[in-house]
Amino acid sequence: MIGATLDRRIDGGGIAVSEFLDDYFARQLERAASHGDDYVRLWVAARDGAAGGKRIRPELVLAAHAAFAGGSSAESVRLASAFELLHTAFLMHDDVIDHDLVRRGAPNVAGRFALDGVGRGLPVDRANDYGEASAILAGDLLIAGALRVVAELEAPRQVRASLLEIVDECVFLAAAGEHADVRHAGAAPGERDILAMIENKTASYSFSAPLQAGAVLGGASAASVARLGEIGRHLGVAFQLRDDVLGVFGSATVTGKSSLSDLREGKETLLVAYARVHPDWDRAAAGFGSPELDDAGATGLRRAIETSGARDRVERLIDARCAAAVDAIAAADLPHGLQESLTMTARTCTERAR
Amino acid sequence: MIGATLDRRIDGGGIAVSEFLDDYFARQLERAASHGDDYVRLWVAARDGAAGGKRIRPELVLAAHAAFAGGSSAESVRLASAFELLHTAFLMHDDVIDHDLVRRGAPNVAGRFALDGVGRGLPVDRANDYGEASAILAGDLLIAGALRVVAELEAPRQVRASLLEIVDECVFLAAAGEHADVRHAGAAPGERDILAMIENKTASYSFSAPLQAGAVLGGASAASVARLGEIGRHLGVAFQLRDDVLGVFGSATVTGKSSLSDLREGKETLLVAYARVHPDWDRAAAGFGSPELDDAGATGLRRAIETSGARDRVERLIDARCAAAVDAIAAADLPHGLQESLTMTARTCTERAR
Repeated sequence: MIGATLDRRIDGGGIAVSEFLDDYFARQLERAASHGDDYVRLWVAARDGAAGGKRIRPELVLAAHAAFAGGSSAESVRLASAFELLHTAFLMHDDVIDHDLVRRGAPNVAGRFALDGVGRGLPVDRANDYGEASAILAGDLLIAGALRVVAELEAPRQVRASLLEIVDECVFLAAAGEHADVRHAGAAPGERDILAMIENKTASYSFSAPLQAGAVLGGASAASVARLGEIGRHLGVAFQLRDDVLGVFGSATVTGKSSLSDLREGKETLLVAYARVHPDWDRAAAGFGSPELDDAGATGLRRAIETSGARDRVERLIDARCAAAVDAIAAADLPHGLQESLTMTARTCTERAR
Repeated sequence: MIGATLDRRIDGGGIAVSEFLDDYFARQLERAASHGDDYVRLWVAARDGAAGGKRIRPELVLAAHAAFAGGSSAESVRLASAFELLHTAFLMHDDVIDHDLVRRGAPNVAGRFALDGVGRGLPVDRANDYGEASAILAGDLLIAGALRVVAELEAPRQVRASLLEIVDECVFLAAAGEHADVRHAGAAPGERDILAMIENKTASYSFSAPLQAGAVLGGASAASVARLGEIGRHLGVAFQLRDDVLGVFGSATVTGKSSLSDLREGKETLLVAYARVHPDWDRAAAGFGSPELDDAGATGLRRAIETSGARDRVERLIDARCAAAVDAIAAADLPHGLQESLTMTARTCTERAR
C-alpha cells in the first residue's frame, strides 16, 4: 500500500496535515456559527468528508517535498492539505453526479442532509434535492478553500505560479475525466476511452500533481518535475486498475466496500470492456448494472470476467504500468529515498489487497 | 440601472473585461481540444454561460478601483473578470440546484448536455443527469479559475491577501445564503430568514465584495473599504428586492423573463412572506408553486400581493435600503465620482424597470 510504504518517511508530516485540516475546519465552524445551525452542520459534514481517507495525495506531496527540501515544512503541510481539500471536494461532487448517498460506509454530505430533510417531513425527492444541493455547496467551498491555501503559500513568486499551474492543470484534467466518465456510463466505452479517463480522472490529480507540486515546492529541477509527472501517470493508472479489480474480486472485509457495488452500478471498467467482447459475458451480462443483482448473478459476472481472460489482461496491464513506473523512477535523477519509496509504491500496487 | 449609471466611467474597462474573458475561454478551448469534442463543448457552454449578463460585478470592481487608482489597469480588469467567472459558476450550480435547464432564454449548460444526451438516445433521466453533471463540472472549473486569477494578480502581498480574504468571505456567505434558500424552499420562511438569505446570497458577492475588492486593489483606506461593504449590503438588498418585485409584476418584454415563472416555481420572496399572513392570499394561494399556474391564477396571486399590502411593504423596504445606502455613501470618505455614481445606482434601484 502506498500509505504504508511512504509512512516511514513522513509520519510527522501526515500528523501535521491532520492538524492543519482540524484547525482549518474548526475556524470555518466558528465562522459558520453566526449563520445558523444548518450551515454549521454543512461544515461539520464537510469536515467529516475530509476525514478517514487514505491521505494518499498529501503523503505524495510531503514525500516529494521532503526528498528535495530535506524535510517537511509548514508550507509543505499546507500544500499537502490543499490537495486533500481538493480531493474531498471532488469526492463530494462525484457522489452527487453518481447519486451516491454513502461514502466509506457512512452517509456522505448528500446522505446526511437528505436524511435530515426526510426527518423534517420533506418528500423523498425534495429531501434528496436538499442533500445534493448541500453536497454541491460543500464541494464549492472546499475547491475555493484549497485554491486559497495554495495562493497564500509563502513561496517565491515563480514557485507559487508553478504550483497554481499544477493545481489548475489537475482540476482541468479531473473535470475532463469525470465528464467523459459520465458520458460513457452505460455506453460500453472501449479500452482507449477508459484509459484516457483514468489518466485524467485519477492519475493526474491523485499522483502526478501531488508529486510534482511537492517537488516544485521542495526546489526540484524542471527535469525532475517532468519525470515525476510521468511516474505519477503510470502509478495512478496501475492504482486505479488495481482498485477496479478489487472492486469486483476483493473481499469486503478488507476493502471496506461490497464487491457487488461496482457490478450493480454497471461501472464501465477495463475489466468489463475486455470481458464484454467475449461470448462468456453475454450469458452473465443481464445482471450487470442492475440494482437487483444478487450474489449468484455477481458470481456469474466474475466468472465471465475470468474465463474471458479480461482479469488476466488487466493484471498484465497493471504489471506493465508498474514496470514502466519502476523504469521511469530508475531513469530519473531523484533523491535516493524518494526513488526507493516510489519503487516500493509501484511494487505494492501490483499486489495491493485494499 | 446600475450598468447604465456606471457605464460612463468604465466603458473602456467593461470592454477589457469582455476581452479578458474571450481570451481566457479561447485558451481553455485550445487546451480542451486534445480531450475530445465533449470536453470542448463543455468549455463552449461555460464560455456562453459567462456571456450576456449585466456584468454588474465587474463594473463595480472597476468603478471602485478606478475611483481610488485614477483609472483602470490590467490588474483591475483581471480582478473584475474573476468576479464574473465566480458569478457564472454560482449561476451554473444554482441552476443545477433548482433543476433549471434554461437561463437568459436559452438552454444553460445542463440544458445543452441534457439535450445532447436525448439526441444520443439516452432516456430522459439519464440525459438530465448528464446535463447536471456537466454543469457541476463547468462550475467547478470556473470557481478554480476565478481563484487562480485572483491568486496571480500582480499586487503587493498584503493586497493580494486582502483580495483572497474578500473573495473567500463572499464565497462563504453565498454558500450560506444558497444553503438557507434550498432549506427554506416550500417552508414559508419569515422576513428575517429571507433578508439574511438575500444579504448572504446576493448582497455580499454581487455588491459588497466587488466594491471592496476594487477599492483594495485601488489602494483605498481600511475605513473606505469597510464603508463600501456597508453600502454594498444596502444596495444589494434593494437590488434583490426590486428583482423580486419585477419577477412578479414586471413586463416580460422588459425583464426578458416571464412574470409567471417566480410564482410557478413558488419562489419564497419577501412579497410572498408578507402576503401569506393575510386572508387575501388564502383565496389565491392554490396556484402558488404549481407548474400548472395559468395567467388567471397569476393575476389572482398578484392581486393578493397588492391587496394584502405586501407589495407596498416591500417597496417601502426598497426605499429604506436605498436611503440607507445614500446616507452611507454621503457619510463615507469616498472619491467624489464614486460617491456620485453609487448614489445614482441607489436612486435607479428604487425605480429600476428591469
